[in-house]
Amino acid sequence: MGSKIKSAIAPTRAEDYPEWYQQVIKASDMAERSPVRGCMVIKPWGYALWENIVRVMDDMFKATGVKNAYFPLFIPLSFLEKEAEHVEGFAKECAVVTHHRLEKSTGGTLLPAGALTEPLVVRPTSETIIADSFAKWVSSYRDLPILINQWANVVRWEMRTRIFLRTSEFLWQEGHTAHSSSDEAIERTRLMLDVYARMAEEHLAMPVVRGAKSAAERFPGAVDTLCIEAMMQDRKALQAGTSHFLGQNFARASAIKFQTAKETEDYVWTTSWGSSTRLIGGVIMIHGDDDGIILPPRVASAHVVLLPIIRKEGEREQVMAYVQKLAARLRDIYYQHRKIVVEIDDRDTGGARGWDWIKKGIPLRVEIGPRDIAQDSVYFARRDHPHNAKTSVQTDQFVVEIPDLLDEIQQNLFARADAFRKDHTLSIAEKDKFSEFFTPQNSEKPEIHGGFALSAWCGDPSCELEIKEKLTVTIRCIPFEQEGNPGPCICCGKPGTCQAIFAKAY
Amino acid sequence: MGSKIKSAIAPTRAEDYPEWYQQVIKASDMAERSPVRGCMVIKPWGYALWENIVRVMDDMFKATGVKNAYFPLFIPLSFLEKEAEHVEGFAKECAVVTHHRLEKSTGGTLLPAGALTEPLVVRPTSETIIADSFAKWVSSYRDLPILINQWANVVRWEMRTRIFLRTSEFLWQEGHTAHSSSDEAIERTRLMLDVYARMAEEHLAMPVVRGAKSAAERFPGAVDTLCIEAMMQDRKALQAGTSHFLGQNFARASAIKFQTAKETEDYVWTTSWGSSTRLIGGVIMIHGDDDGIILPPRVASAHVVLLPIIRKEGEREQVMAYVQKLAARLRDIYYQHRKIVVEIDDRDTGGARGWDWIKKGIPLRVEIGPRDIAQDSVYFARRDHPHNAKTSVQTDQFVVEIPDLLDEIQQNLFARADAFRKDHTLSIAEKDKFSEFFTPQNSEKPEIHGGFALSAWCGDPSCELEIKEKLTVTIRCIPFEQEGNPGPCICCGKPGTCQAIFAKAY
Repeated sequence: MGSKIKSAIAPTRAEDYPEWYQQVIKASDMAERSPVRGCMVIKPWGYALWENIVRVMDDMFKATGVKNAYFPLFIPLSFLEKEAEHVEGFAKECAVVTHHRLEKSTGGTLLPAGALTEPLVVRPTSETIIADSFAKWVSSYRDLPILINQWANVVRWEMRTRIFLRTSEFLWQEGHTAHSSSDEAIERTRLMLDVYARMAEEHLAMPVVRGAKSAAERFPGAVDTLCIEAMMQDRKALQAGTSHFLGQNFARASAIKFQTAKETEDYVWTTSWGSSTRLIGGVIMIHGDDDGIILPPRVASAHVVLLPIIRKEGEREQVMAYVQKLAARLRDIYYQHRKIVVEIDDRDTGGARGWDWIKKGIPLRVEIGPRDIAQDSVYFARRDHPHNAKTSVQTDQFVVEIPDLLDEIQQNLFARADAFRKDHTLSIAEKDKFSEFFTPQNSEKPEIHGGFALSAWCGDPSCELEIKEKLTVTIRCIPFEQEGNPGPCICCGKPGTCQAIFAKAY
Repeated sequence: MGSKIKSAIAPTRAEDYPEWYQQVIKASDMAERSPVRGCMVIKPWGYALWENIVRVMDDMFKATGVKNAYFPLFIPLSFLEKEAEHVEGFAKECAVVTHHRLEKSTGGTLLPAGALTEPLVVRPTSETIIADSFAKWVSSYRDLPILINQWANVVRWEMRTRIFLRTSEFLWQEGHTAHSSSDEAIERTRLMLDVYARMAEEHLAMPVVRGAKSAAERFPGAVDTLCIEAMMQDRKALQAGTSHFLGQNFARASAIKFQTAKETEDYVWTTSWGSSTRLIGGVIMIHGDDDGIILPPRVASAHVVLLPIIRKEGEREQVMAYVQKLAARLRDIYYQHRKIVVEIDDRDTGGARGWDWIKKGIPLRVEIGPRDIAQDSVYFARRDHPHNAKTSVQTDQFVVEIPDLLDEIQQNLFARADAFRKDHTLSIAEKDKFSEFFTPQNSEKPEIHGGFALSAWCGDPSCELEIKEKLTVTIRCIPFEQEGNPGPCICCGKPGTCQAIFAKAY
């Protein structure tokens, strides 16, 4: 028991979680930092995961009647200013285009030229530019609802960046809807949050808490912000999707008026909702182990890698023929409405080859050598099991069972994450216990704290602020599901108005 | 014969083609100008077409081994400068980010603040930023080839814009590959041009000429630019896709070196290839008629609209039940690997409703009223036939035949465009005839000229320039297929080195 078990990633999660995160990404070849400040390069293995997330979510959006469209990358400064809270929220971190060409100076260096009369902001989000279109599109209640989504890149000039979690440019979708009644808009806000929750739980194997943000954590310009929050393995919270009820704030700012069925005039009610490449960071942090990332099969960049075992050159032809035939059979099978994606790795790199695929997090690894072929069997390993736990099975059986096998892995990942979250979510009613929960036990590991505290809050922002300043803990959400009397506020002791999830967060 | 036939779009193509183009887009609800200079809003009907184009092309790319990735939106000025011709080509029309936040001035107005030490250019194309990644990814011939594609937005600050054809921001894909030999890179350049040609001809029903650009028309920094050129209904050429062999130009500029199999060091050979939302403009211009756009079924935003005919309120329930049942049956049928997309329009807008769908260019319109239901039949119209040519057919037969019907329309659109192109492509050997071909016969219609002239060229850029200046006619491409001796140059009379396609162009 005394000897340390070797793992593929150094440091391990327990040793240094933030550094582990950087190292698993590097080892998986999913993405890398770019020479452009705060921007990332998403490499094929990471982008394929994103494509799968996009495909699943896009289908879910469309099933609710949403249609895709595309709006300009640039937002005139005067548009951003239309909603006071909104501009306040984004002015501090936006890329500003001020010129439209480059010109050689007398010294020969290239300089910006052709100054714009009005600067353009690279969209940090598109409420204001889309509101301008909605104002043109809507005149009567018959034009409503408008249900639009956009897949796009956005830019928020972040000072401290981390790949996938916080980058200056990221990929996302932003949905924007307009309605003839407040109730209908609120219903849509909730519906889209449910889509995010289903996406996270059913496809990313990421259990989430659904709830509402406190006023301090709301989207700038929103009346209400709903969110899903997941627990990472360092017990911090990750906001994985938000859905905003914007009331008539943006409609008033951009004059989106309509004639009602009663022939009166009113402003529309709008919503917006977004999720981003940050989800990839969540997948990495919630499932990864000390050997690297683990991809949930339903969105995995590939499902299975075939690893031919060729010890003598004379074996190559027979082994490769068997491998190719198996690949063709597997590629013809559907798993979750998508054909199984098979990789074949016939590089001659010894043990490093298998480790490469472990680090990439592919759900299944299959070794095939002359001995397996003689028995018409394969030797496979599941990424959610220890790396040396391998099973021999008849090839025909493997082919038949692969969809079930993938779904078992999917369910196992969810169950593990769900158990972890439950283990580290505590109802806390006493202030001392609350502080202790969030105070690292071991000064060498400042990251290790309790997890999610479910505690009462009186609703006063000053209590929220006090907790934030003392413990760097924030209200992640006020869960939709509330049980009985909340009890006294964890901070001031006055009667609570709700139970909230308090946690440290990304 | 004297009375003018009514058409849905004014002006007609013959009256004013450029204005017809603007009006058909407006009438189809595909896209509109945005308040941001030169940018467009792509509305759901237009975006759905783009999604289908993307899906088809993405599958074709992947079938050749290409994988998708994503690179930063911003390019440091110093990167753009690395390749001299390249920066020369793009400096005059690029959006430059110079600041990273906004600050209130003392007067209360919001101004750019936080000046960047190095300005960033919003990518007009990504050769230089991707070359930087390739330089990190490649060290040995074993790392090659690299076959990458990116779906992205790009910005080129155009002074005169036209929706889909020339906008400051547009959506596109850009492929970038690196190879260990010149031959392999040249082969890839040609392979991707073939993909574009197949996409255009088989899916957009757009016949194209495949060929190479003259030096004057090459991509800035390329050794060779291949292209596909299509003829629009005003007989102008539209470049619908380009594939560039970049030689070692960008590899040298960004130091993309590798160790060869013979253990020497060399620079890689790279290619790039792109196509964009401009294709949508091509679809509109090549197929549209005086009643609006006509969508090729294989990429159409929707395939068929069901129009319930309800003359009395008492008929509604029965008719709608029949329509919904038919829609469900149709939605279960595959056409070209995609389920049939059905719209139901039960608005009570009389004749305007049918015209709306004609203008949208949906391939099939189906009217269903109580009389049709009594006979278990539908009354349908094809968008490629005159608007009043409608056919009654048994509903069961319609359901069975719809894939064939769609493909008939697809083939008919191609055949029409192909015949038009052949009718207006002329081999011309005499200079006078050449000038006449491109000189409008009727001064009231400056757009109507001959079409494509296939004529000999000596290869001298000064001849090319003379023709351009005199006739605003350029060499669109030097077709791959050349027949026999080209004959004397159409401009100087010296021996020609090739036959070229000369035309006016978008």
